Amino acid sequence: MRVLGIDPGSRYLGYGLVEWRGRAAAHVTSGVLKAEASQPLHRRLLRLSNQLQAVFELYQPDAVAVEGVFTHKNARSALILGHARCVPLLLAAQAGLEVYEYAPSRVKKSVGAGGGDSKDSVARMVARLLSLPNDFQRADVSDALAVALCHVHSLRMPRASTSGARRGAADSFLARLKPSVVRAAS
Amino acid sequence: MRVLGIDPGSRYLGYGLVEWRGRAAAHVTSGVLKAEASQPLHRRLLRLSNQLQAVFELYQPDAVAVEGVFTHKNARSALILGHARCVPLLLAAQAGLEVYEYAPSRVKKSVGAGGGDSKDSVARMVARLLSLPNDFQRADVSDALAVALCHVHSLRMPRASTSGARRGAADSFLARLKPSVVRAAS
Repeated sequence: MRVLGIDPGSRYLGYGLVEWRGRAAAHVTSGVLKAEASQPLHRRLLRLSNQLQAVFELYQPDAVAVEGVFTHKNARSALILGHARCVPLLLAAQAGLEVYEYAPSRVKKSVGAGGGDSKDSVARMVARLLSLPNDFQRADVSDALAVALCHVHSLRMPRASTSGARRGAADSFLARLKPSVVRAAS
Repeated sequence: MRVLGIDPGSRYLGYGLVEWRGRAAAHVTSGVLKAEASQPLHRRLLRLSNQLQAVFELYQPDAVAVEGVFTHKNARSALILGHARCVPLLLAAQAGLEVYEYAPSRVKKSVGAGGGDSKDSVARMVARLLSLPNDFQRADVSDALAVALCHVHSLRMPRASTSGARRGAADSFLARLKPSVVRAAS
């Protein structure tokens, strides 16, 4: 099972592919796609779409995961984000894949970063969980890997989304993924 | 010169193709594309994208025009609108076409409906200007035709977008399009 996590943006699009291998999630590939800020929006979207399509074709994900947007203070930035989110959604639909959305707080908890922690904390935990150096090119990359891990988690622990047991379920998941990492992070 | 006007939405996408023929703009085709509300967003976007791509292939527009979004009160609906707007922008970019955006007030003025008038007024004026019955399936269709007409207008009257002479420029344009209609509407 390969899950492609995506952190969309109209200039930078982070992606991270994670594979569930029996008892642990492994990093397959990740990176950031870029579009020239000087280009008009429709050309930026095309540039990102073409690059992301190449990722889909090269790595053949089984599912796509993105952060859901549940609140947004600024309508203008929400509008731009909407354009950017459409790119992975369309490509996923074209490939016949399902798209899974997770609340940002759930994504953070899923990697053990805690709901209120910073992007640095997410990056640190993602690096530990996937045995990667914590030198992600941008937070978009670690955020994309985090949402991919969150989906892998939800597959392994389908009850994590119900009741007040989210945190416990996340801990259990982390424990099964990499026990030593969980201890180090707690 | 064929201009495809689009009024995007995540359930209904209005389109209207207008051709400039020397001294007048003529209606080529128009309609509304639909996506099932029961489908998840990524499948709705794909459905609309596939249908709109067929319109592009069948009618070979030279340019695409959409209403710009300059203010939006609700961030949630702005986010959904952003997803929906991405569909025509991506298809236009894939076809190598430029995308032109016009303020809603300018679109209304361009067809002689006045900035504060209702969608009914836009539909009535679009029907008159293009010699169509005023029985558009949805306002999305007349709005799409209106923004296409607005772009044709801007091509003929490039100064319309500057200074306080917008209304006069729009009237002049309308006068050249269909003098009797302009009188009837004034």
